[in-house]
Parts: sequence; C-alpha cells; structure tokens
Amino acid sequence: MLRFWKKSTTRPSRVVIVGAGFGGLSAARELEKLGGFEVTVLDRTNHHLFQPLLYQVATGGLNPSEISSPIRSLFRESPCVTVLLGALTGVDRVRRVIQVDQSGLELAYDYLILALGGQTSYFGHPEWEKWAPGLKTLEDARKIRQKVLLAFERAELESDPEARRRLMTVAVIGGGPTGVEMAGALAELRTHVLRREFKRIKPEEARVLLLEAGSRVLSTFPEKASDTAADELRRLGVEVLLGETVEEISCGSVRTQRRTLAAENVIWAAGVAGHPLAGLLGAPLDRAGRVKVNPELNLADDERVFCLGDMAHVADKSGRPLPGVAPVAVQQGKLAARNIAKLQANRKPKPFSYFDKGSMATIGRKSAVAVLPGGILLSGWAAWLGWLAVHLAFLVDLQNRILVILRWGWAYLGWKWNVRLIAEPSEAAGTAGLPHSTRTAPAGS
Amino acid sequence: MLRFWKKSTTRPSRVVIVGAGFGGLSAARELEKLGGFEVTVLDRTNHHLFQPLLYQVATGGLNPSEISSPIRSLFRESPCVTVLLGALTGVDRVRRVIQVDQSGLELAYDYLILALGGQTSYFGHPEWEKWAPGLKTLEDARKIRQKVLLAFERAELESDPEARRRLMTVAVIGGGPTGVEMAGALAELRTHVLRREFKRIKPEEARVLLLEAGSRVLSTFPEKASDTAADELRRLGVEVLLGETVEEISCGSVRTQRRTLAAENVIWAAGVAGHPLAGLLGAPLDRAGRVKVNPELNLADDERVFCLGDMAHVADKSGRPLPGVAPVAVQQGKLAARNIAKLQANRKPKPFSYFDKGSMATIGRKSAVAVLPGGILLSGWAAWLGWLAVHLAFLVDLQNRILVILRWGWAYLGWKWNVRLIAEPSEAAGTAGLPHSTRTAPAGS
Repeated sequence: MLRFWKKSTTRPSRVVIVGAGFGGLSAARELEKLGGFEVTVLDRTNHHLFQPLLYQVATGGLNPSEISSPIRSLFRESPCVTVLLGALTGVDRVRRVIQVDQSGLELAYDYLILALGGQTSYFGHPEWEKWAPGLKTLEDARKIRQKVLLAFERAELESDPEARRRLMTVAVIGGGPTGVEMAGALAELRTHVLRREFKRIKPEEARVLLLEAGSRVLSTFPEKASDTAADELRRLGVEVLLGETVEEISCGSVRTQRRTLAAENVIWAAGVAGHPLAGLLGAPLDRAGRVKVNPELNLADDERVFCLGDMAHVADKSGRPLPGVAPVAVQQGKLAARNIAKLQANRKPKPFSYFDKGSMATIGRKSAVAVLPGGILLSGWAAWLGWLAVHLAFLVDLQNRILVILRWGWAYLGWKWNVRLIAEPSEAAGTAGLPHSTRTAPAGS
Repeated sequence: MLRFWKKSTTRPSRVVIVGAGFGGLSAARELEKLGGFEVTVLDRTNHHLFQPLLYQVATGGLNPSEISSPIRSLFRESPCVTVLLGALTGVDRVRRVIQVDQSGLELAYDYLILALGGQTSYFGHPEWEKWAPGLKTLEDARKIRQKVLLAFERAELESDPEARRRLMTVAVIGGGPTGVEMAGALAELRTHVLRREFKRIKPEEARVLLLEAGSRVLSTFPEKASDTAADELRRLGVEVLLGETVEEISCGSVRTQRRTLAAENVIWAAGVAGHPLAGLLGAPLDRAGRVKVNPELNLADDERVFCLGDMAHVADKSGRPLPGVAPVAVQQGKLAARNIAKLQANRKPKPFSYFDKGSMATIGRKSAVAVLPGGILLSGWAAWLGWLAVHLAFLVDLQNRILVILRWGWAYLGWKWNVRLIAEPSEAAGTAGLPHSTRTAPAGS
C-alpha cells in the first residue's frame, strides 16, 4: 500500500473518537496507554451508558445515573484526552475534519474512529415506533417506565373490564436477550412490586407477553438454553408465543398472522440496524445500514477512518456479521487503537478476530442462562450469579457498583423498588396514550 | 352554627385529599389513625416529593428518586386509603364532587382537603420564567441541572472570552433559604466536582452570584444568622449582592437598578404564591393568590372544605401569613384531619396554632445556620449536623435514607458526584439557550 502522507514529527497525532459507548471508550483507553496521541472524545450526551442494564431502568429497578458515568469523570486523570459534548453533523474526509452541531465548529483529525452505536430497526415499518418504543437510550427507558406505570394507574381508574385488561397487558416483541430480560423484569415488577399497592385492580393479574417470530427465544444460543429460558419465563408467568410474526402495530394493539392482541404497552426488542449517521461517511453500507469496513476496521478507501461496534459490519469466520454486543465493541476499540499506532509507525495493521467469552441472559432475579466458550451451558442459580458478577465488574465506576449492589440486594430481599416516578403532566403529556373513558366513580369505593 | 347535614350511619365518611405533599400526607395519616374514614388521595404525580432537598437534585448531588417516594407504597398497608393519579380540574361544592382530568371522572366527597402547594411567583413578570426557572418540581430541578451542566460544556467549546465568562456565570435571585442553599451547592459543584474535568476552562473560576433585594439574606432569621450565612457563602466564593432589585431578566442577562450582569443561568428563588388552581374553589384569595381560610382551616362559607399548606393563607399571632415550610403544612394536615373528625362528631373544630420548632438553612457541606425555639442560634458544624439529622429523619423511606447518607458521605469524602446526566439532544433541545458561536477549533488543542 502506497502512503502519501508523511508522518509529522512536530506534534502528536490527533485522533478523534465519536461516541463514548463501549467501543469508543475502549479505543480511547488503549490510545492513552499506547501514548503519543492527542485524543478527543465527542459524544451527544455527557455520559457513558451501560446499555446491558438499560432494561432495569425501563422497569424501575435502577436509576438512570446508576448505569451511566460522566465521560469527563472517566478521563479526569488523562491529560491527553479531551472530552467534548456535541453531535456529529458531517465528515469531510478530504480536509480531514468533522463538523459538530449546527454551529460550524470543526474538529481536525489525523485518524478518525466512529463508534456511534446502532438504532432500533422496525423492518421497514418506522410508523410502528410511535406505538412500540425500542430501548436504546436512557430517554427510551424513562419513557417506557413512565408509560408502563401510567397504564396501571389508569387501569385503577377504569371501570370497563375490557379496557382495564388492555391497560394491564404488555407485549414485548422479539425473543433475543433484550426481549427475554425485559419480559422477565416486567413479570417481576407486576408480581412482586406493584402487588398490594392498588385497591381495585390486581397487578399480579397483568399479562406479560413475549412474541418471537422464530421457533425459539435466544436463537443465537444453543437450543437447550432457549428451552430453559422459555421455561423460566413461563414460570414467572410470561406468555411466550413463538412463531408469531408481527404484521401490524397500532394504538394499543398488535396483530400477528394468528391473532390480534389488545396491549396498552408494546415494547420493541426485535431489530437493530446501523446508525442513521453512517451515511455521512460516504462509505458502502450493508442492508441493515452498517458501514462495511476492512477486517482491520478501517475503510477500504481511507485507512485513516475506522468504524466499529454496532454501526460497523464486520464478519466472523463463517461470514456472518458479528453480534451487536459489548465485548465485540470493546475488542474492536482496542484493535482500532493499536492499528492506528501501527499505521503511525508505518507497520501493517492487524485484522479483527473476535474472542468470544460466551453470552448470557438473565430471567428475573434468580435465574439466567449462560453459554461459555466450548459450548458449556449454565442455567439457574449458578448462571445468575455469574451474570451478576460479570455485570458488576463491567459497571464503570465504584460508586455505581455499590449502589447497584444495594438496589439488587434490596429487591432480592423483597424490598419495594422505588425508582418509579411518573413525571409531572407537562413531561408526561407527550407519552400519554389513550384517554380515560368517561364516567363517574364514587371516591374510595 | 346550624347543621343541615345529617350524619350517615351506614357508611364511613368520604374524605378526598388533593395533593400528596407534606400537608396532604399528614392529613391522610391522621385520618387513618382516627379511623372511620374512607380516604382518597389524588395527586398529579405518583410520588411524594421531599422538597427541602430539591436543590440537591438541581445541583447534581442526588437522584430524583432519592428524594421521592411512590405514594402507593406509602399507603400499601392502609386498607382505608385509596391512591389515585390525576389532575384536579374542578370543584363542585354544591354537588360535593371534584372533577379529575379532562375525562369527566368525578370523585364524591363528604369532606375535601386541598393541599396543592404553591407556585413560583415572578412578581408580575411571568415572562421572566423562560430565562429564570424556579425550583418547585423534579422537572424544574432536572432542567436547571441540565442547563447549568450544559453551560460548562459550551464554555469548554467557546473561544470568545466574554461569551465564555457569561456561560460560566450563574445568578441566583432571592436570598431566602432556597436561594442560599442553591448558591452554596452551586459554588461547591464548580469548585469540588467540575474542577479538573475540563481541559480549556477552569470551572473553579465560574461565578456564582446571589442577588437579594433586601439588606440581608435569610431575612426571616435573626440578623446574626444572616451575617453568618453571608460570610459562609463568601467563604465558598459566592458573590453576595444585597439591596439589588431585579428590573429585567432576558436571555443570558439580569439587570438590577445598579448593574447589568451577563449570566447564562439565572435561577429564580425569590417569590412564592398560591396555587394556580386555587381559583377553582370560588373562595376569596389574598394578594399572593392564597385561599383565605378560617383559623380552623376550612372555608368561611363551607365547613366541609379545608385548605392548607402553601396554597392557604393562615395568619400567625401577629397577623402575618405563616411561611410556606414543611412543618406548617404537616401541623395543618394533622389539624384538618382532627377538625373533620370533630365536625363528624358534631363537636367544635379547633383553630390552628403553629408550634415553631425553629428553622435552618445549610450553606455548602460543612456549614449551616439554625434558629431554635427561644431564639437560640446555632451555626457552623453543629448546625450542619443538626440539619443533616433533621433532613434524614424526615425523608420518608428507609431505602432513600440509606442512599442519601451514602451520597452525602461520598461527597464529603471528596468523591465525585455522578448524578449529572445531560439528556439526549431530543430532550435537551427545549432547554438549550444560546447557539454556539461559529468558528473552527483544532481537535485536542
């Protein structure tokens, strides 16, 4: 490969990293360790989000701040890392600058790492988003929590049995790890937390449905793990419906090829796609909108630009794209940083090879399934303890680790979860779904 | 007094309480204790808010959920108390029903207790609210936190020194307890928390101003306490400006009779007024919009309707209205409940008499001033420990008490505060103030 760019010896190379998710943070940390770089981390928000626990925020178990850490704090002791808050609005690969916000601010780079993450995909039905929110950001989680809790409040005021039933039904679409964990947490929310707090309705009679188009949940896990997970979900009272293809979602209703379900809350956990800003790069995308990159994680026509994590299409040995999970992004971030150091030293960058340490999904607060390297399958208590340890270990800061342990401990001991605020009406207005029916009810009846 | 209403012996009396603040909760608890009532508690939100610590949410020290408790949880073990989520939209004193939401839902009452709280008053300048938010709800606190943190992020990107200075200036209007506590917490946020986290700006150089129209802060405290508080604030680096009357607030600017200050964030802690819904009652209001009630806390022309807390005008012995603080509301709630029981038993209700246990205000994390009954004045460490004990004791649930102790302990030990999320742009858009100026900045410089 011919290199027309001459290495400058007068200043350290400038690396701009966009996105402070698992991939972006890992790249920044590695560049810091390698030394000799001026790193700028740009993110739309001021915090790193620990997405694997986002479903617990959506179901009232944890606070948003307990699964997020201010990016500035993470790089407090890093003189060579600058953190900026702003949204990427353009990439100019000729001038080697990116545009930030609408303000005309530009950041110059010698190397660029894009790690923007993915987005929820509705398989060509963006109109479903209104009725079936996905779970990608803290704001998503807050909205889902608000809407689910509000439905119980409305049910308490509702006299029409059919409307009450609809208000007390939540349908989760998609039987992957997110869908399974979400359904399990919702089942426990209604059975253990809301039970006994209402006078007219019985929250424990609420229905939680998990709809999966395929023949089993957790389709990327071995079949035995799928069966165990489905059994555990049923034990918690989740109605697991397999082979159900969603054909239509509208206000308070889901239609599949087999039935129509009345559900006030529908949560979409079925599809992910590349980031909407991936197009800014002007590089080829795959069908899901992910950027196609070299095995070395940079672009075929621009070795200075790297893409990784959920927004990138990187194939595994069998040619299938790697899953959008944290370990993939972390390992890619590290490799991107090392490859930049290699390019800088005029050495050949290395291709990415994913070291799969296994995968796991939790079902409620006593059970999980885990697949370890070599296909070893764990389930029940042992897997749950493993899940606990892994998630605590990866939570970025100590303070949050302590808080999360406390909250989980309390939940485990049967204490009430109290992270369940319904915001003031001004904020809630946007998410309010159905009007109350009109009637007169006596107080205290 | 002639009583035309015959006591029913077939069913317990129905008491509807609107508002689950300190007053409403206290009334509900007392009615529960007295027995023989069917109580319905209606609130716009699903949580009781511990307002005295709201300023710590606004300055990133605590999570919203840590100072709020779901109302349902509080009455979990109370078979005679029903909790409903909804907004009061009308009171029909002839038919003895209140209207809820826009839905036509009506709640019938035998006795009605309105404890809606107050609102921020801009002394005839409602247009200032846009630039100088008040601090009444969790949503207010979240917005202030977001806007203050965002200003530092913008300052980091700003190259114009004057604009940077404006971005790094916060002006608190009003030297009452809220203003004093807010200013102290902001001073500590910038000195202890944000320091060292920015590369270009020095957050510790940020200006925190406290503007008070009168000649001293904490004007309801003895003069010595005011002086101590002002000294402590100055020690923290707050610029205390006394005798400053605000004449105009606009985008990023405050004008007083003496000067014009450029401040990106202006926080209004100057005035409170009655609740905007007080007019629904059709009862006489005082100049601040508070409902004028009998000394027994019910209306002159309707003994079945009680008003209390910040929305009611009750005079002390000297004829001045009582302050809008939690102990007043708590004691009034208790009396309203007892007076209802008295009316029910055809006995004469009692007038309200405030037992003042003293007042306190904290200044940063090591100091406070407290005035005990008999005019005993405490300040410094001792007062601060007292403040700590009182606030922890009144936090409604044990779980939150533990979490708040932890967070305060950590802050005290110099750990970083991490409850400082800036939301995703979609949510932030509404609160974003000024555009960035247009320029090009090199990365990592």
